[in-house]
Amino acid sequence: MKRYEKYAAEVERMVRDRVLRPGDRLPSVRQACASRKLSQSTVLQAYYLLEARSVIEARPRSGYFVSKQQALLPAVQNVSRPKQRSASVAISDLVFEILGSTKERTVAALGSAFPSPELFPLPILSRYLARGMRDIDPWRTAEDLSPGNAQLRHQISQRYARDGIHIDADEIIITNGALEALNLSLAALTRPGDVVLVESPTFYAALQAIERLNLKVVAIATHPREGIDLQALETALQRNDVKACWFMPNFQNPLGSVMSEAKKQALAKLLATHQVPLIEDDVYGELYFGTQRPRPTKAFDKRGQILLCSSFSKCLAPGYRVGWVAAGKYAKQIERLKLMTNLSTALPSQLALSGYLQHAGYDRHLRKLRQTLQALRDTALRAIARYFPEGTRASCPDGGYFLWVELPGDVDALELHRQALLHDISLAPGQLFANQPDFAHFVRINYGHPTAAKLEGALRVVGELAGKMRRTHD
Amino acid sequence: MKRYEKYAAEVERMVRDRVLRPGDRLPSVRQACASRKLSQSTVLQAYYLLEARSVIEARPRSGYFVSKQQALLPAVQNVSRPKQRSASVAISDLVFEILGSTKERTVAALGSAFPSPELFPLPILSRYLARGMRDIDPWRTAEDLSPGNAQLRHQISQRYARDGIHIDADEIIITNGALEALNLSLAALTRPGDVVLVESPTFYAALQAIERLNLKVVAIATHPREGIDLQALETALQRNDVKACWFMPNFQNPLGSVMSEAKKQALAKLLATHQVPLIEDDVYGELYFGTQRPRPTKAFDKRGQILLCSSFSKCLAPGYRVGWVAAGKYAKQIERLKLMTNLSTALPSQLALSGYLQHAGYDRHLRKLRQTLQALRDTALRAIARYFPEGTRASCPDGGYFLWVELPGDVDALELHRQALLHDISLAPGQLFANQPDFAHFVRINYGHPTAAKLEGALRVVGELAGKMRRTHD
Repeated sequence: MKRYEKYAAEVERMVRDRVLRPGDRLPSVRQACASRKLSQSTVLQAYYLLEARSVIEARPRSGYFVSKQQALLPAVQNVSRPKQRSASVAISDLVFEILGSTKERTVAALGSAFPSPELFPLPILSRYLARGMRDIDPWRTAEDLSPGNAQLRHQISQRYARDGIHIDADEIIITNGALEALNLSLAALTRPGDVVLVESPTFYAALQAIERLNLKVVAIATHPREGIDLQALETALQRNDVKACWFMPNFQNPLGSVMSEAKKQALAKLLATHQVPLIEDDVYGELYFGTQRPRPTKAFDKRGQILLCSSFSKCLAPGYRVGWVAAGKYAKQIERLKLMTNLSTALPSQLALSGYLQHAGYDRHLRKLRQTLQALRDTALRAIARYFPEGTRASCPDGGYFLWVELPGDVDALELHRQALLHDISLAPGQLFANQPDFAHFVRINYGHPTAAKLEGALRVVGELAGKMRRTHD
Repeated sequence: MKRYEKYAAEVERMVRDRVLRPGDRLPSVRQACASRKLSQSTVLQAYYLLEARSVIEARPRSGYFVSKQQALLPAVQNVSRPKQRSASVAISDLVFEILGSTKERTVAALGSAFPSPELFPLPILSRYLARGMRDIDPWRTAEDLSPGNAQLRHQISQRYARDGIHIDADEIIITNGALEALNLSLAALTRPGDVVLVESPTFYAALQAIERLNLKVVAIATHPREGIDLQALETALQRNDVKACWFMPNFQNPLGSVMSEAKKQALAKLLATHQVPLIEDDVYGELYFGTQRPRPTKAFDKRGQILLCSSFSKCLAPGYRVGWVAAGKYAKQIERLKLMTNLSTALPSQLALSGYLQHAGYDRHLRKLRQTLQALRDTALRAIARYFPEGTRASCPDGGYFLWVELPGDVDALELHRQALLHDISLAPGQLFANQPDFAHFVRINYGHPTAAKLEGALRVVGELAGKMRRTHD
């Protein structure tokens, strides 16, 4: 990240944290140069960038000001206080009802869990597909059974190492996407009736897995920017015989929250004390907009009790179904479970990714993808600020492709989704993300579907529908 | 199948069924022509074929006789009478101990579950891999989520239709191999504590799945040539609240038995009466040595309660991990379970197989594969007859690539496997195939690993080891 980008990110953070408020004047270029020891061109470039993103606006002969548009969209503040009682889960039917609608390409997939497939280098990947299998030694089809292709596991380990995360290639099991990694981990750690902790709100697939395995769930209060409330977590660990946690410390789905390194460290320590393993979902870790990849909690794991799950599906190769779990001391157990479940992950997919990682520009692709997503985030935030009813709040995540939007309390998100579907727009209503009705006026919005014009158009329709739903209650 | 092959098969069947015994004289060419209304050259060709396979031998100026070698190897007769009491299962550790050793290419993999990867057209498949993904519409990566690629599902349905089996493309869900199809089916039909019926002996993965899902099992007596004992099955259905059966009516693993069409029809009827769904494992259905593909029980299913599971892994594309389940009335449920488990099967693999099926010579490949396997079966039978201790019996399957070999009762198969491993030979001891110690002196031998010379060499070592184990007990 260049110097001006760094400075722009700093200013943006101050705006978001309301240190600088809408309408506030920014330091002049001369002031900024002096106080921050930056060159004039660096400061100017940063301001141009922020202006292009509509974070700030220039007023002739007066300087730069925080954009008024930002004012219309306060951050989500609400931290749910879920009941601490463990409960069984019955949410799958609702999830399928809602997600069934997002496969059609004619539908504006604001409710989808995937970014647009057009964002990925599919033609380049296909070259590595053919190359990987063309001259393959036939015996490899047997040798690359679970835990998976040795070179790919090594490459994944090396990418982590580059980001300061020590993960042994030996503890990595290649899975059929991250979802399988998460499911295998949960199945390995629990038996029917066991208690599992999740965030509130949480990714619905966690709730579905818990339902399917007949487990009990306790949801932990989670802050929209800072992640899990460690106090609430400690209480839950004391009150319940917890067998596993399923958390998402980086770019939480749906909140977008990222836990600080200090909090992650404290989380790892707390779980170590209670000897409770953590299933860490890190599928959006590579999609950060800041200066560096946020490290997973696994980076602070001294006991091998964190099972880090991720995949290439959301940042490189949708449809290839290649994910992994770095399973620490549970590696052997997960390897066996994978063998029993479906033997191994498709070899052509594994070899294609391994070939791509070795030769092609993964980092270049990622940089471009992050920029695209960040710009789309800003488009979506502006559109929401403009078209959604007064009182709407939204997250402003530093990565990923989801906004978590809080509508005025009398707007029912499920009803809004159903009305939007009539206009060929899907949403992910808040009801999907908890076992309790805490989020019935929230929606998760996927902004990873270019173009900006379509995104804005769809959000305008949704905003107007939400507005009408408000008025009918007046 | 040509006329002479048909006649040869008839004679071979008589030898196997001991209508013609070792040393018996065959009808003269003239007699055979008259009685069977065949041309002289047809009969001669048949006899040449049988001679090449060492089923019969020519004696100068005397005619053809049943080979003496055949005498040494009687058919497995033993039908186990497993206890009818349901029981929980704990076999996984043993399976992993034994199968862990079969991945190394230096080991003669008589114990492997897979045929040699050298038997498959991997270079041709790799062409279709690249072709399928090269110009793909990116949206397909989302649209081909479970239940899977529409064209591939249609092609599978069409192949069944050609063999007189009506299966609707709509009921087919593409899975990550047949093992996943079987596991998803079992998970969909059961809850912890439920009773499931399996054959005795049975494929160990069935026992592992039952163990993993905390189910109870009742094993049903199964005849080494004719398959499930329907009387025993009826008794078990009456005595237990059975939630599912997991059977393999075609080329049962490990027995090699094939149920007749009449028996399959009766099986379908019996299960319909008791309203018990059948998970039908048909992975070896295409590897028949006879004139036509044995139809699965699913062909007689009138209620949509048979879940037919199969894959391309054992007859075309190992490592691609493409299987399926034709799930009848459970299709929607399985589709959802697949979505929750790992979303979908790798798209590159699906498209490669679909492309191959459309353009390349699958049937030609299969014909060649079946011939290779049948010749290897005969090599293995001859070697066992020659080198294994007296009293050894063996199956003579009409398809697949497994022999089920009964050693003299004092030879412990697990011990034999361990000793063979010291000679870089793996075996699948009978202990893997049942929850009870009924098969401790049986081994399953995989003959699908050319070359014939290596196969014979490995069987010679195993036979000698078994012989020594006998003598130590004398």
